Amino acid sequence: MTMPKSPQPFPRSEYLRRLTAVKSEMRRREIDVLVVTTPANITYLSGYTSKSGYVPQGLIVSSKAEEPTFITRRMDAPAAIHQMFIDRNHVIGYPEALIANPDRDGYDAIIDFILDEDFGRRSIGLEAKFLPALANEKFKVRAPDAKIVDCTNAVTWIRGLKSDLEITIMREAAAISDAGMLKAKEVIRPGVSEADASAEIIATLVRGADGKPGTDLASFFLCSTPRTSTCHIRWTEDTFRPGSQINLEFSGVRHGYTSPLMRTMIIGKPADELRRLHEGEVAGLEAALAAARTGRTCNDVAKAFNTTLRKHGFEKESRCGYAVGIDWTEPTASLKEADMTVLKQNMTFHLMLGNWIDEDLGYVISETFRVTDAGGEPFTKLPRELFQL
Amino acid sequence: MTMPKSPQPFPRSEYLRRLTAVKSEMRRREIDVLVVTTPANITYLSGYTSKSGYVPQGLIVSSKAEEPTFITRRMDAPAAIHQMFIDRNHVIGYPEALIANPDRDGYDAIIDFILDEDFGRRSIGLEAKFLPALANEKFKVRAPDAKIVDCTNAVTWIRGLKSDLEITIMREAAAISDAGMLKAKEVIRPGVSEADASAEIIATLVRGADGKPGTDLASFFLCSTPRTSTCHIRWTEDTFRPGSQINLEFSGVRHGYTSPLMRTMIIGKPADELRRLHEGEVAGLEAALAAARTGRTCNDVAKAFNTTLRKHGFEKESRCGYAVGIDWTEPTASLKEADMTVLKQNMTFHLMLGNWIDEDLGYVISETFRVTDAGGEPFTKLPRELFQL
Repeated sequence: MTMPKSPQPFPRSEYLRRLTAVKSEMRRREIDVLVVTTPANITYLSGYTSKSGYVPQGLIVSSKAEEPTFITRRMDAPAAIHQMFIDRNHVIGYPEALIANPDRDGYDAIIDFILDEDFGRRSIGLEAKFLPALANEKFKVRAPDAKIVDCTNAVTWIRGLKSDLEITIMREAAAISDAGMLKAKEVIRPGVSEADASAEIIATLVRGADGKPGTDLASFFLCSTPRTSTCHIRWTEDTFRPGSQINLEFSGVRHGYTSPLMRTMIIGKPADELRRLHEGEVAGLEAALAAARTGRTCNDVAKAFNTTLRKHGFEKESRCGYAVGIDWTEPTASLKEADMTVLKQNMTFHLMLGNWIDEDLGYVISETFRVTDAGGEPFTKLPRELFQL
Repeated sequence: MTMPKSPQPFPRSEYLRRLTAVKSEMRRREIDVLVVTTPANITYLSGYTSKSGYVPQGLIVSSKAEEPTFITRRMDAPAAIHQMFIDRNHVIGYPEALIANPDRDGYDAIIDFILDEDFGRRSIGLEAKFLPALANEKFKVRAPDAKIVDCTNAVTWIRGLKSDLEITIMREAAAISDAGMLKAKEVIRPGVSEADASAEIIATLVRGADGKPGTDLASFFLCSTPRTSTCHIRWTEDTFRPGSQINLEFSGVRHGYTSPLMRTMIIGKPADELRRLHEGEVAGLEAALAAARTGRTCNDVAKAFNTTLRKHGFEKESRCGYAVGIDWTEPTASLKEADMTVLKQNMTFHLMLGNWIDEDLGYVISETFRVTDAGGEPFTKLPRELFQL
């Protein structure tokens, strides 16, 4: 029996639409073949979410073929045949001899394919910034007559503009994020360990919401007293106490897509300074969403937030958000001053208002939203509360 | 209030022992300053497990200082002060202006520090293979009088030889892996969704075992019928049925350390071929463990496994394992033929016997073990069964 195709999260026409946009960008940059190696971009162009990206792999988009070709470790080929919308003949597994081999690796298999397809004297696009140094070097050495062009983030920028089908999936992920936050509110109590609470929240993110299971786990952070000024600690071996403050950041995942969410909870009553910070941040959040209208810029959104927060007597040093979608952060548009990216309908951002002010003062709130003509439309349905437990 | 130190998983003397080994290797390679950027190596030399490695950061080990210095994004400095054994003055946070900035990034902050410390004309070691191409370039351009030496995996090889303290932590992680597998055996039933079963198993990995919580989550794979030939799919939206085969791979985590485990389960009775494959693999596993004695080589272990499996009428294309520890795989010693790495007491390996033979035939079993004079000593206490549910 051969591997059947899995149900696809998107119709073939949606993948072809994305590929058309990529090929159009390739023509603009005079690229004949593009080697897509960033896992999120591979997911975007094929539906593949299997976790094989720790070894070399590449999705080859060529101007002369409708479907791309995926080159991956042989043991991962069946997952690609199963998950990708492309024909099984467009999945090529390279042999195990290229694993843990200092002389030849999976990038050589990719280069072999490109040379076999007669692109050796053409223009080859690479996501160079995210490739290991040795891989970049390999392309130059083995395809000396090709023109190697850095196309870092070319696909990522295209990915930034979501279709309505993608927005639907991101709303499903957001409903899971909401369910996780409500579970946190339910299980965090004095005497409960951070690990036991995390177990319940994470299990909720896997079970999903509204009959749609989570399809993966993304980053998960639970930073509680005395760690409220930290932002990237999973959880610790501590137990919650009366007065503990808990800063949470996590996301549900649907078919690779995330909709991150942050909220702050406190067991008991917040100190005045924390309450004032919360009020300033929520006012800033609302100002930022109002500014996030089609035609405005990332700079406008950041200015709206920063100005409002400043009126409340606080500053936030870090940017107030970033483009978001498959695998969380898209390294393109930033919600920060001087980022003049123009907002378009269905761009999606994580309005990330985590503010780690001092070693004993940190507060988090965030929402994932899409840009519309009427402003930023958040995906979460949760209230903008400092949750008192 | 300033950030307190967290309880340390290891005493200061253990970190200094590790640093002494690294500095000795630096002297051997004539390196004056080593820039450690691989997250697992940073954990190894400092105790830091916060997840800030998605932006540039570096632990600077210099021949002239007892403690290393950590350079990280400013918002991550409090977590480093909290988790690392080093003095808070050895944690330097770089400003947000270096995030999402095409001209200057965190690597510039690292280079600034190195130049300030007068290493501009000395020998600088980099983990070049795992650095982005642009970062490698930056060091060359900004420190043109320095000798840049590739030290990829120098720390990783040192990390390969565990102390008894590390073995204790890896046993704790293994107990969590075992608890997860027993939970899988309990919850996988016809009519249960893959997501709901995964939620229960993952929650167990977070709650931990024997009063020791999991401190993080590592990779988790549940590849069930008709996906038994895949190896890196998390789980799907399917529901288990009578006859479903389930291939599981996951690990408990303690303070960064993993002890991965794989087992195959089946709802009902296995087909003859699967049972024969199971028997061959278990015989191979036992032969491999017997061969994994101090003084033998990785090649010996692989040969013992491959010869035994072949006698049972099967072949495994992929290597039969790899060095394991912090953050799972150590990209150093491989349990494969022709890897002549000599085994030493307390080297630890994931004897990974997943065998994806055909698009409808895959089977997994694995154990994490340490090398001893008497052979490989596995950390799991589970039977080597093809679990029938």
